[in-house]
Amino acid sequence: MHLFYQPNINKDTFQFLDEIESKHAIRVLRLKENDLILLVDGKGTFYEAKITNAHPKKCGFEIQQKRIEESKLPYLHIAIAPTKNNERTEWFIEKCTEIGIHEITPILTQHSERKNLKEERLVKTAVSAMKQSLKATLPQINPVTPLKNIVITPFDGKKYIAHCHEGNKKLLKTDYPIGENALVLIGPEGDFSGEEVELAKKNGFIPISLGKSRLRTETAGIVACHTINLLNE
Amino acid sequence: MHLFYQPNINKDTFQFLDEIESKHAIRVLRLKENDLILLVDGKGTFYEAKITNAHPKKCGFEIQQKRIEESKLPYLHIAIAPTKNNERTEWFIEKCTEIGIHEITPILTQHSERKNLKEERLVKTAVSAMKQSLKATLPQINPVTPLKNIVITPFDGKKYIAHCHEGNKKLLKTDYPIGENALVLIGPEGDFSGEEVELAKKNGFIPISLGKSRLRTETAGIVACHTINLLNE
Repeated sequence: MHLFYQPNINKDTFQFLDEIESKHAIRVLRLKENDLILLVDGKGTFYEAKITNAHPKKCGFEIQQKRIEESKLPYLHIAIAPTKNNERTEWFIEKCTEIGIHEITPILTQHSERKNLKEERLVKTAVSAMKQSLKATLPQINPVTPLKNIVITPFDGKKYIAHCHEGNKKLLKTDYPIGENALVLIGPEGDFSGEEVELAKKNGFIPISLGKSRLRTETAGIVACHTINLLNE
Repeated sequence: MHLFYQPNINKDTFQFLDEIESKHAIRVLRLKENDLILLVDGKGTFYEAKITNAHPKKCGFEIQQKRIEESKLPYLHIAIAPTKNNERTEWFIEKCTEIGIHEITPILTQHSERKNLKEERLVKTAVSAMKQSLKATLPQINPVTPLKNIVITPFDGKKYIAHCHEGNKKLLKTDYPIGENALVLIGPEGDFSGEEVELAKKNGFIPISLGKSRLRTETAGIVACHTINLLNE
């Protein structure tokens, strides 16, 4: 069954796909009246619906039933420095959306080479990955935020900072308690500065290693995301 | 220290970088005589060397000392159907090389949309990822191989086939015994056929799931690779 994203789904029985999704349904997929489709609202609910009006700009549908997405994954938030090459950040977002994540914040750090991002593209990447992996929940993607703001904002769960400086670091897989919410900070190509690591530590972040391999920024992000998912599987 | 790939390093004290690496060292990085460089042979050894002749086409160096790469990862071989979009296969190779893998075989399956691959590009991707992650071991990248050939070839370790058909499947993370070699088969966008799954089962492959999320081919490959690495960490 074909999947459509409809963030503003409401309680009315008869509704319409937006113009882009209508065109896709009717012109590309050539769906007809009475064909069944699946809708997701990005907030965790699937809707089974029947096409009532195969209009290529305003395709009408009627909801048949809804189903809440099941997930055992506790809240996972990854705050990551955008990579110099935008594609790598998009790839990180695609893979984490497939694997499982709730919130992503691009962060501004002292060694960040990139200070801006096209948020709209990141959201598009996440929507497409959500549909591809048949999920109903779209991760929240925040605007680029200075590291300090993330570090001093309270978070109800374990807080980690992954960095490559020498020193006493725990392994994420052994420190993370299954079932707990987690916020993980991932640094830029040039790593977090010593000052940034100290600031995070002062605010309750635990320095961690993701393993013995030296990973690129986006790989570290995916590895952190998959570690938390795997432990909760 | 700058890292160079020198697959044909030998026992002579005085040697030369190849033309491309010489140009990179002398013209791009502007290294000079007596500068120290790090070489890897792709077979698990690091060499510390000193530049003896800063020639832009045939840069001479003298080996100072060598060090064998440490790794606790048992032999890991992933056989994966090439994705329709080549970039996704290259991403898979880059990420697995960073995370840790010994052998990669692109496989021909009944539902494969792509039947050929530029092996040379895949090897280049792996070399660059090896250097980037400061590893000394280059994964072996095999030519495209029919699934059947992989399935009937003896393998000394656990053999898994990841597929999305219904049925009795174990979770890779719970079935895999730490320390064992592993061969994991990852199917194409359209999954392995029922016939292919049966053939693999007959030859001792255990059907597995990688978790509840529905993953793209290349994501499934990375998730399998990271699962084995994480368990052995």
